[in-house]
Amino acid sequence: MFFHHKKLMYTVRVRESNPQLATLMLEQFGGPQGELAAAMRYFTQGLGECDPGRKDLLMDIATEEISHLEIIGTIIAMLNRGPKAVQSEGMLEAEDMRLLGQNSTSHTEQILYGGGPALVNSSGVPWTAAYIDTIGEPTADLRSNIAAEARAKLVYERLINLTDDPGIKDALTFLMTREVAHMKSFEKALHSIKPNFPPGRVPGDPAFTDLYMDMSQGGVESEGSWNSGELWERVSDRDAQAALDGGDGGCSVGLTEREQRAEATMVMRTTSAPDARPTTGAELGAGPGAGALDLPPREP
Amino acid sequence: MFFHHKKLMYTVRVRESNPQLATLMLEQFGGPQGELAAAMRYFTQGLGECDPGRKDLLMDIATEEISHLEIIGTIIAMLNRGPKAVQSEGMLEAEDMRLLGQNSTSHTEQILYGGGPALVNSSGVPWTAAYIDTIGEPTADLRSNIAAEARAKLVYERLINLTDDPGIKDALTFLMTREVAHMKSFEKALHSIKPNFPPGRVPGDPAFTDLYMDMSQGGVESEGSWNSGELWERVSDRDAQAALDGGDGGCSVGLTEREQRAEATMVMRTTSAPDARPTTGAELGAGPGAGALDLPPREP
Amino acid sequence: MFFHHKKLMYTVRVRESNPQLATLMLEQFGGPQGELAAAMRYFTQGLGECDPGRKDLLMDIATEEISHLEIIGTIIAMLNRGPKAVQSEGMLEAEDMRLLGQNSTSHTEQILYGGGPALVNSSGVPWTAAYIDTIGEPTADLRSNIAAEARAKLVYERLINLTDDPGIKDALTFLMTREVAHMKSFEKALHSIKPNFPPGRVPGDPAFTDLYMDMSQGGVESEGSWNSGELWERVSDRDAQAALDGGDGGCSVGLTEREQRAEATMVMRTTSAPDARPTTGAELGAGPGAGALDLPPREP
Amino acid sequence: MFFHHKKLMYTVRVRESNPQLATLMLEQFGGPQGELAAAMRYFTQGLGECDPGRKDLLMDIATEEISHLEIIGTIIAMLNRGPKAVQSEGMLEAEDMRLLGQNSTSHTEQILYGGGPALVNSSGVPWTAAYIDTIGEPTADLRSNIAAEARAKLVYERLINLTDDPGIKDALTFLMTREVAHMKSFEKALHSIKPNFPPGRVPGDPAFTDLYMDMSQGGVESEGSWNSGELWERVSDRDAQAALDGGDGGCSVGLTEREQRAEATMVMRTTSAPDARPTTGAELGAGPGAGALDLPPREP
Amino acid sequence: MFFHHKKLMYTVRVRESNPQLATLMLEQFGGPQGELAAAMRYFTQGLGECDPGRKDLLMDIATEEISHLEIIGTIIAMLNRGPKAVQSEGMLEAEDMRLLGQNSTSHTEQILYGGGPALVNSSGVPWTAAYIDTIGEPTADLRSNIAAEARAKLVYERLINLTDDPGIKDALTFLMTREVAHMKSFEKALHSIKPNFPPGRVPGDPAFTDLYMDMSQGGVESEGSWNSGELWERVSDRDAQAALDGGDGGCSVGLTEREQRAEATMVMRTTSAPDARPTTGAELGAGPGAGALDLPPREP
Amino acid sequence: MFFHHKKLMYTVRVRESNPQLATLMLEQFGGPQGELAAAMRYFTQGLGECDPGRKDLLMDIATEEISHLEIIGTIIAMLNRGPKAVQSEGMLEAEDMRLLGQNSTSHTEQILYGGGPALVNSSGVPWTAAYIDTIGEPTADLRSNIAAEARAKLVYERLINLTDDPGIKDALTFLMTREVAHMKSFEKALHSIKPNFPPGRVPGDPAFTDLYMDMSQGGVESEGSWNSGELWERVSDRDAQAALDGGDGGCSVGLTEREQRAEATMVMRTTSAPDARPTTGAELGAGPGAGALDLPPREP
Repeated sequence: MFFHHKKLMYTVRVRESNPQLATLMLEQFGGPQGELAAAMRYFTQGLGECDPGRKDLLMDIATEEISHLEIIGTIIAMLNRGPKAVQSEGMLEAEDMRLLGQNSTSHTEQILYGGGPALVNSSGVPWTAAYIDTIGEPTADLRSNIAAEARAKLVYERLINLTDDPGIKDALTFLMTREVAHMKSFEKALHSIKPNFPPGRVPGDPAFTDLYMDMSQGGVESEGSWNSGELWERVSDRDAQAALDGGDGGCSVGLTEREQRAEATMVMRTTSAPDARPTTGAELGAGPGAGALDLPPREP
Repeated sequence: MFFHHKKLMYTVRVRESNPQLATLMLEQFGGPQGELAAAMRYFTQGLGECDPGRKDLLMDIATEEISHLEIIGTIIAMLNRGPKAVQSEGMLEAEDMRLLGQNSTSHTEQILYGGGPALVNSSGVPWTAAYIDTIGEPTADLRSNIAAEARAKLVYERLINLTDDPGIKDALTFLMTREVAHMKSFEKALHSIKPNFPPGRVPGDPAFTDLYMDMSQGGVESEGSWNSGELWERVSDRDAQAALDGGDGGCSVGLTEREQRAEATMVMRTTSAPDARPTTGAELGAGPGAGALDLPPREP
Repeated sequence: MFFHHKKLMYTVRVRESNPQLATLMLEQFGGPQGELAAAMRYFTQGLGECDPGRKDLLMDIATEEISHLEIIGTIIAMLNRGPKAVQSEGMLEAEDMRLLGQNSTSHTEQILYGGGPALVNSSGVPWTAAYIDTIGEPTADLRSNIAAEARAKLVYERLINLTDDPGIKDALTFLMTREVAHMKSFEKALHSIKPNFPPGRVPGDPAFTDLYMDMSQGGVESEGSWNSGELWERVSDRDAQAALDGGDGGCSVGLTEREQRAEATMVMRTTSAPDARPTTGAELGAGPGAGALDLPPREP
Repeated sequence: MFFHHKKLMYTVRVRESNPQLATLMLEQFGGPQGELAAAMRYFTQGLGECDPGRKDLLMDIATEEISHLEIIGTIIAMLNRGPKAVQSEGMLEAEDMRLLGQNSTSHTEQILYGGGPALVNSSGVPWTAAYIDTIGEPTADLRSNIAAEARAKLVYERLINLTDDPGIKDALTFLMTREVAHMKSFEKALHSIKPNFPPGRVPGDPAFTDLYMDMSQGGVESEGSWNSGELWERVSDRDAQAALDGGDGGCSVGLTEREQRAEATMVMRTTSAPDARPTTGAELGAGPGAGALDLPPREP
Repeated sequence: MFFHHKKLMYTVRVRESNPQLATLMLEQFGGPQGELAAAMRYFTQGLGECDPGRKDLLMDIATEEISHLEIIGTIIAMLNRGPKAVQSEGMLEAEDMRLLGQNSTSHTEQILYGGGPALVNSSGVPWTAAYIDTIGEPTADLRSNIAAEARAKLVYERLINLTDDPGIKDALTFLMTREVAHMKSFEKALHSIKPNFPPGRVPGDPAFTDLYMDMSQGGVESEGSWNSGELWERVSDRDAQAALDGGDGGCSVGLTEREQRAEATMVMRTTSAPDARPTTGAELGAGPGAGALDLPPREP
Repeated sequence: MFFHHKKLMYTVRVRESNPQLATLMLEQFGGPQGELAAAMRYFTQGLGECDPGRKDLLMDIATEEISHLEIIGTIIAMLNRGPKAVQSEGMLEAEDMRLLGQNSTSHTEQILYGGGPALVNSSGVPWTAAYIDTIGEPTADLRSNIAAEARAKLVYERLINLTDDPGIKDALTFLMTREVAHMKSFEKALHSIKPNFPPGRVPGDPAFTDLYMDMSQGGVESEGSWNSGELWERVSDRDAQAALDGGDGGCSVGLTEREQRAEATMVMRTTSAPDARPTTGAELGAGPGAGALDLPPREP
């Protein structure tokens, strides 16, 4: 279970009101790489985890991420605190009205959410659990967690670039740094499972594991460890790329007699007559001088 | 640009109609870990990429994934081909009607999509670009790609378990194996960038990089390389966990005079009187013998 | 900030595996009336709240709801624990495969989420912050909270009906009861603000506050305190219902000269000629004996 | 403005309870081709329309579609009326509980929506305005309306196949027929605008209007009026298909000096060294006998 | 299967950086009328198609649309290329920061997506397969395709208006023109099916096919081929519009005895007493001088 | 069924074009607290309602809300009428182009929706039925309706602040006032059901009804009628808060023998070795001087 402590994990000091900056900060509150996504990712993984070490790790970090969500949400609340009151009490002046009409999505924050931190991203898109990619297998989920922390680190790095308020810069740097620490933990946890590659239980088919399919051609080809060297057998020939199983590259299914009858009926009903030259709505709609369309005589 | 070849990359042989199985296969067609998500992930990364080697790699794999999308979509089309015709031509029998009413989301496939492969997952949720987590920085995106391939590999592993049709098993094994090959390429590409950890450009704050925050307590604590050893400084004390910056753990913002006035007005208007004992809708709504609610005398 | 305790707020005892029941329980995990929605509702309100009493109340209940989320998620994890392992290790038998193909959305749980509790509802729809209706004004938000607790109470009531596992029934009854307790708290908090009706700051226009608009007619009319008595002035006459402001019920806007010119051009370009009797795609598409369509002579 | 009449536009007579069938009917209540989508499509077009004839047509049909929404919603309500009461009053028996666990999305209807008609499709996906494709230009929107009516007609055709309750069949046939009537009206309205092809105001570039791009090759090529005849110039040669403008098929942009400096820095920071043979996480994760991976000596 | 050629289908020449314009271009990349929607529409139709001519047509155009997606995405990448590098390498200046806070959704592009082309529309809404309206019947789907091309043509027409960069104007004109060509192909394919009206297999009920329901009244009535002439029987009388089947316009369902009992219980439990004059939360919440509410004596 | 009258319920007089203001008004057209949400909320409740008085009330208000939707949509159409024509006819000037690139989401309105009122909110997020929280039980739904009207009232109050166009202010004040009137009706209808608290049928467990869980601690504690007084038993002790049932706060499930075997296999396969000190991708990726990472000797 969870307890709440009235202190924040990091003190929030905001210099002045700035609803536009608040909107940008929403990216780490209700955005896809934000703290709610992180917290829910680890929390739901932890609930389904059997291994006690990983479960503990996941709950440790999930709890920290909820505490981070509180920090970023508090920054947003501080940035909006004054404008929220001004708007709420009907004290807007002409310049405020102009800004709300001309500005970024901060207008939705003010009108719909009343200045409160809403779980939307910086474009106003509501947070969705579709952001969470947990699939319930640790050799995959830990890799997903490593990647998620990398992404969150980058978004913080970008947000730090956007303000010169020192209190906000400090808090964002703290949050960014913790993502790096979490990356290290998840890397350790992944490689404490042996083996962990390929992920899951079933091995791949050796016939296809080492093929590098050179699908994009027609210009300078680059080589690197990802597509050349003894690890790889490169397939560049267009004909060889098709039907890698050695079959005809077609498709088939066994149908029952009733299904065959139904299909024959459907095909006949909807067949496109290749030799028809039908008049169409395009000809009807084109103006009198529409020379680009052939207008055959009306069919009987 | 793209060209299409009428041959599939892998021949599809389906034994018999099975709309229920088709519904499960949708997970890799229009689901979050499916082939459209993979194709669009690499394609959009490739468009924004400056490094010629990585751009080529991303376009190679994107193109292969679209070709995989065609394979899994063709499997679904074959599994539904008979039932689609039967339904379309009004040849349903009582048992079909019962199954469509009683069954899983395959009814939506038949009624709404007419048996065609739709870009939805196995619960009927439409595919959304919210599944794609690209952020435009290779040291993060390549980690995301490695993780995405791991997840897709697992979902194929699970689908293989669900059928004994040998043609489908073969094709799914091919698709699963290719995810492993892609993982290897992305790993190589990631580690061809030096350094790549921490991802991005800005280093973390050394004061917080090595802290392990022990947030979940009250039972057996597990130790592992992820939270102990010389790499980590563990913080377990509840008081030490709060306000890690050494501040008071509070929050503040500078307000203009107008903002202060507005806030004062708002606070006064909406203050909750702590000493009131108001009658509420709950008391009004509770029945005559609602002893659980204290019913104070009506306020004047 | 938040701390986690390894004990649950309520002990979870599940009799046996039941992935179908797990799917139903998802409604209170990742559904619109579920515990995540509740927790996030109060947490985000708390972040934006200035009144210390309400802020404390909101954080108390938010923290309890996260702890409830953990309970319901643990019930789901227990119900799925066995099937998850069976599927993960490839030990499915024919009956399992049949069930996964025939069954409800539990197949998505197994295939996509690997048996873990996912933040989706019982139809597999991902949780979205669109479920949260906070607008940042306590006289409205507290009413929303009262209603949200009422809804959650009802969904628990329904889930209790669906199982005879005594451990699950107990835990659900606990969770249901707590929603009632929260309702009482929010009622008290609402009525501690005086006045709180109408919500917000601006009074209504007296000309329209007491009108009851009788818009649905043509059968037996019901009367009750909601539409009759001295509180209401009923408007039933169809003509009186239109243009209540006394105007002509039309619409107008002042356009600049350039806008007027543009509109004139647009109207001319897209005007629908009322006296034309055009042949259309419908006539082209109707078969030879399509007597239902009038087929005028082809226009020159 | 709108008035409501207590009579339905078509009498609804349902033989018996059937929550499974109710779920299927949701497709035309809250599904993408359903009556809400139709009503909102025409209503929003009507609001923005300047031409009085089209505005009247759109409002006529929008109003009829809302009345249809009421019919299909009433059918759903009747099919669920008994089960709703049974569930609401806690009178479920073992068989009901089994069905709710085993069945299709009807469980969400019962648990979350309490048996009421909810604006979701037959898979439980909430209705979204993303279904509406209005763009505010009549020569395009009328074509969209024609297509929308065609789709709705088909979904009704399929639903009629799924039941033998004569009262439901009658009502569905009425609703299906009205879609055909609306198609005819929209066809007439489209072709009352002259010219209407190509839609909009700007003509196409004659250099590209008549090209048929033969992008899918490698098997039997089909011919028809859509790709051959004097209307078309077919481009089949792969080289000719690229860079149709006669350029080099590349891309370029003018950058400022600061942008060039930034790009150079970024490229250097993230360059992928083509001649590196790095050890990666895959090698670390592969088990001892993982011969498929080349394990080069650790780099210094 | 698909192959990729490193040349674009149309050369992209962008004059200078412009992230604001890039945001607008997103409409045709990840918007509802954009190229991904087009490509996926035809690709999924092609997979389910039996008729070889239509399948070939659909795959030809699907492949072209993916190639168009690459063109529009490349335009966006070029417009963002400089700003992406500047932001990525921390070289932002004060004016950039101001613009990112004040501007349109381009801030999300920079912060969340790192300047890469993301599959969102110009408001930042992620692409969803809900945009695709395929239902698996060619006489409906071809009409949907015609309409989709018309809409896409219009959005290109609007984008062309918004820039004076000649390279972008050229490429957009090419893309716009191809939509017109596709419209023509789909028109031909539709009318090669005979008959194709009404779409599908089941005819309408002659009793309701020719009725024009005059639902919007009270002002000037417009006449046109869509509602008058010998094709139509107009129904304007309000009473005649109700219960068109000749019934009573009511609704009914047969209930089992248990269901009837349950309903009686439910009705009794939730009955609204019409003669009550209850005190409500509104009275409790209204301030002392709230004369607009009748405050009856408290009920016993 | 519904009829439409060409007069609006309130005359709309707009002073001049203002697409930015139009965007803000979208909040009450296609936003979560807007008129479509209100109309659909009451309409769907009405369809499922058995009590004739409540059904009549719901249909009365639903019909009024659709008429309000028409008013707010007409205001938006008027504000956009001129700009729509200018854009549609290609008469944009440089300043218009600059505004469309720099501005709020009004660019999507113009480019995608062509100036028509679209069912999106002020950030361009499409309306979704996820906004509707009806659950089919009047003692809950009426509370939800009261809250919904309160929220809508507030959003109108905020919009009124944003314009000084007297015609718009008048119409918005009318709409705001009607929400207050609806609140009163729903309050009366709720309290006409006796008892209505707790909502639903099943009472809570007395052991947990009166507990106030003091979950947020560590600062000044506030007291009020919501958490103190004789109504409440406060639980502040952290140990007492856990496992309120008196159990051990753990979780358990009965597994079959096969499930136990599967779980044992899974645990062994994925166990995290606590004493390993593995090298990870982080060490591989860190640069040469990455002293922050401990680099243990490579494992054999």
